[in-house]
Amino acid sequence: MHNAQYRLASRPEGAVRHSNWLYTEEPVGRPAEGEFLVKVEYLSLDPAMRSWMNAGRSYVPPVEIGEVMRAAGIGTVIESRHPDYCVGDTLYGVWGVQNFAISDGTGVSKVDTSLAPAPVHLGVLGVSGFTAYFGLIDVGKIKEGDTVVVSAAAGSVGSVAGQIAKILGCHVIGIAGGAAKSAVLLDELGFDAAIDYKSENVRARLKELAPKGVDVFFDNVGGTILEDVLARLARGARIVLCGAVSQYNAESRPKGPSNYMQLLVSRASMTGFVFSDYAERFGEAAVQLAAWLTDGRLKSLEHTVSGGIERFPDALLDMFAGGNTGKLVLAL
Amino acid sequence: MHNAQYRLASRPEGAVRHSNWLYTEEPVGRPAEGEFLVKVEYLSLDPAMRSWMNAGRSYVPPVEIGEVMRAAGIGTVIESRHPDYCVGDTLYGVWGVQNFAISDGTGVSKVDTSLAPAPVHLGVLGVSGFTAYFGLIDVGKIKEGDTVVVSAAAGSVGSVAGQIAKILGCHVIGIAGGAAKSAVLLDELGFDAAIDYKSENVRARLKELAPKGVDVFFDNVGGTILEDVLARLARGARIVLCGAVSQYNAESRPKGPSNYMQLLVSRASMTGFVFSDYAERFGEAAVQLAAWLTDGRLKSLEHTVSGGIERFPDALLDMFAGGNTGKLVLAL
Repeated sequence: MHNAQYRLASRPEGAVRHSNWLYTEEPVGRPAEGEFLVKVEYLSLDPAMRSWMNAGRSYVPPVEIGEVMRAAGIGTVIESRHPDYCVGDTLYGVWGVQNFAISDGTGVSKVDTSLAPAPVHLGVLGVSGFTAYFGLIDVGKIKEGDTVVVSAAAGSVGSVAGQIAKILGCHVIGIAGGAAKSAVLLDELGFDAAIDYKSENVRARLKELAPKGVDVFFDNVGGTILEDVLARLARGARIVLCGAVSQYNAESRPKGPSNYMQLLVSRASMTGFVFSDYAERFGEAAVQLAAWLTDGRLKSLEHTVSGGIERFPDALLDMFAGGNTGKLVLAL
Repeated sequence: MHNAQYRLASRPEGAVRHSNWLYTEEPVGRPAEGEFLVKVEYLSLDPAMRSWMNAGRSYVPPVEIGEVMRAAGIGTVIESRHPDYCVGDTLYGVWGVQNFAISDGTGVSKVDTSLAPAPVHLGVLGVSGFTAYFGLIDVGKIKEGDTVVVSAAAGSVGSVAGQIAKILGCHVIGIAGGAAKSAVLLDELGFDAAIDYKSENVRARLKELAPKGVDVFFDNVGGTILEDVLARLARGARIVLCGAVSQYNAESRPKGPSNYMQLLVSRASMTGFVFSDYAERFGEAAVQLAAWLTDGRLKSLEHTVSGGIERFPDALLDMFAGGNTGKLVLAL
């Protein structure tokens, strides 16, 4: 039995290339005392992966050259020498891009597949859901009646953020690329409005759709979309910095928002956060998100790529090209 | 008796030029019922003047072409048909760049020159002091032990901000241009450290002077200095956006901070504010600032240009070239 893996061969300059990956196979390891062996079933593919491939200071250490690429996922215990984890347990963990992983339980949590299928625990009931929940509520301080704009609104976090804002009584505008994504936002997720940044003038549309300005902007994208929203802020607006996917593959220095002084004009703030800081409150978020999911007010949008680990490099590139709608999951 | 004035002749592209001003003389007006006439004695010259010369959305309306240039100042009532203001009263108001002004009292406040000379009421006991006070305390939420960095630290607002942070128990680093300004920060104002951005590597010096990172950055400058500080933020840092003087004269689009996503890495915020939003609490600030001034803990740094209103265009250019230390005041 072999363990297929993708390791980081080199750091990309600009866009990720196939040559940045090294495909390896090695014998499946055996757990030591206090460890267990997991067969990985689903991997979460995330825009943040691009930043983990860079050297230097970030909110997590970079993946080192030669290391198995970092990835969260869901798997089942197939052998255990750990008292808390039994064969057959379904677990969430940062397994890496590989078919099998050995763990001592660090950063691992049990997944209740009776509540929702495993991939949902990587999306709405997992990191994407927690990120949207704490970003909007704690960082963005949304309140009923706010005009909330979400970028990458058809993505894993954006699709949840927009729905939460809607549930909490906000007027929600989603920005996404292409007519198909706009249709999903409006018809499936209940957004009030959608802007297709590929075919529409974002600034002009925001003026039309948010005549009193934007109260909260949940930004996954950065770049010109961030500038467009900065130009349309309401007094006291809050910009929640969740990501900057438009800049992750930039070959030159990323582009800063040239009109950031609109923060002064609008007495507004721009605040960064990382979901893991809220680990002590994941329970609160999980209960609320599961309740909304169960009563049908919150929909889980998943985009599952099947075909096994060999599909990893292409699926990642497709994500950066905007190919996915909802949470992108690789089924192994 | 004639009233000499500087009016906006054209909007500058990039740096202000003499041709942007129109010098006019007109007869001194007479106050109508409910108005009074002021002889202007001191004018406050401020970096923000550059932004008032631009068309478009800002925190105050632009000065229109042909209008007397906006300027705050201090003057004495020489004729009154207003019940609340008597001949001889010394008043703060937005008089404009002119020798005489007529007012109905809007935005005017009385100045107690027994407390401090008139120019101090344009600096420490006026807008500069209020801006520093509310920016640091309310927006920056400084607390004892914080490492606080101030840019344009030898300027009108920066010199007060740094001193307040020091009084409140912070470790204070000032960034200013030139050895003379560094000496003022260290020897006269009691800053813990000074960085001369003209001769030193700001990022390297910050690493040295703030090894645990910067908790609060009071920014008057923007540009590369903002980027340098973003690279050295402590977890949970607060950036207070007070100004962006390095960008006001930019001919192309201003430069946004390319590493703004350090706000995410550091779970930090960047917040804009305008001092006038705190008008209801000016009394609180004035009492506190006057007390610190009286007991010698807070120093007033003024740079008074004499020679009358004809010096206005040159004095303003000199300010943008960094020629002043402390509050720049034009004596008429």
